[in-house]
Amino acid sequence: MNSDFHIKSEIRILGIDDSALLNKNVMIVGTVFRGGSWIDGVLRSEITKDGLDATDIISNMIKKSKHYGQIRVVMLDGITYGGFNVVDIEKLHRETGIPVIVVMRSYPDFEKIKSALEYFSDGKERWTIITRAGKIEKIAGGKGRNPIYIQKAGIGLESLKKIIQLTSIRSNIPEPLRVAHLIATGIILGESRGKA
Amino acid sequence: MNSDFHIKSEIRILGIDDSALLNKNVMIVGTVFRGGSWIDGVLRSEITKDGLDATDIISNMIKKSKHYGQIRVVMLDGITYGGFNVVDIEKLHRETGIPVIVVMRSYPDFEKIKSALEYFSDGKERWTIITRAGKIEKIAGGKGRNPIYIQKAGIGLESLKKIIQLTSIRSNIPEPLRVAHLIATGIILGESRGKA
Repeated sequence: MNSDFHIKSEIRILGIDDSALLNKNVMIVGTVFRGGSWIDGVLRSEITKDGLDATDIISNMIKKSKHYGQIRVVMLDGITYGGFNVVDIEKLHRETGIPVIVVMRSYPDFEKIKSALEYFSDGKERWTIITRAGKIEKIAGGKGRNPIYIQKAGIGLESLKKIIQLTSIRSNIPEPLRVAHLIATGIILGESRGKA
Repeated sequence: MNSDFHIKSEIRILGIDDSALLNKNVMIVGTVFRGGSWIDGVLRSEITKDGLDATDIISNMIKKSKHYGQIRVVMLDGITYGGFNVVDIEKLHRETGIPVIVVMRSYPDFEKIKSALEYFSDGKERWTIITRAGKIEKIAGGKGRNPIYIQKAGIGLESLKKIIQLTSIRSNIPEPLRVAHLIATGIILGESRGKA
């Protein structure tokens, strides 16, 4: 399942970030990158704030893209999008056939998440999806920068580390996620801000 | 006025493209690039389809950006945005203090434009702005690819050519415009398509 594979320098990667929670519909942006070098495409879709549709919507956005046949890895910025819309990374991997890498700047505060989920009638289901995302590991960020935390589905740790090093050319966050963040914040707020 | 200047490899460039004409408000997207290498920021604003507000809105978008002090060149994809919303490049240069480069894949069909402008009550004013944009010159595209056509305000031809060569690393269109186009079409249509 979590197999390692050969990483080409121009491996196609889809990085997905969400935008600010201004409405019930939250825009998500995907950037199709070749390695860490340049953008081949931009995808956009909407998920529901605090809904449970993120997994299906991301999966469909990928499958209907003209880049679907080329994308070798999907990168997520954490597993909760649009508030507490939790992405089931095993299901996303299974439905698209593409390995999934979750990148986080810091270790998630699970106590805080668990408390927040108590306000959801389906909080238990969301918590199950969160725990199903597997072990969180701390690895080196790109080019000796700050470490990052990762989860994964359908990819081995060695391949994952190579992809992180290949694509983190500007910060400790891989380019597909850094640029998806710039686009998502720039489009919704008028000018990009903050970090992925 | 059209002076040449030293071009650093990481010169900050703002490339601006518009999106599909689906509504009265047409989204414009700006990408702040360092040379042809990577994106530092994304800007977004709206102009009126077939209006005459593009010059002022682009000028204001630039002046209120946190990148304003760093941007050394503005690149436009032709001078008509959102239908026939004509950009006055001399005014844009004067108001922002930043040189402007207009990039076109092909020589504009001025007869067609002139005919279309007959349907506008202020068609003469728009035509004056178009002629004021100055001589259209054919120059080499990046890396020996197809030639492009350019106009300019506040920059010499030698500096302009260096900037085109520096930034056209993926096609004969400079990266700031290529990526602005991918973002504008991707966000509005759900997936990027076509060429800047």
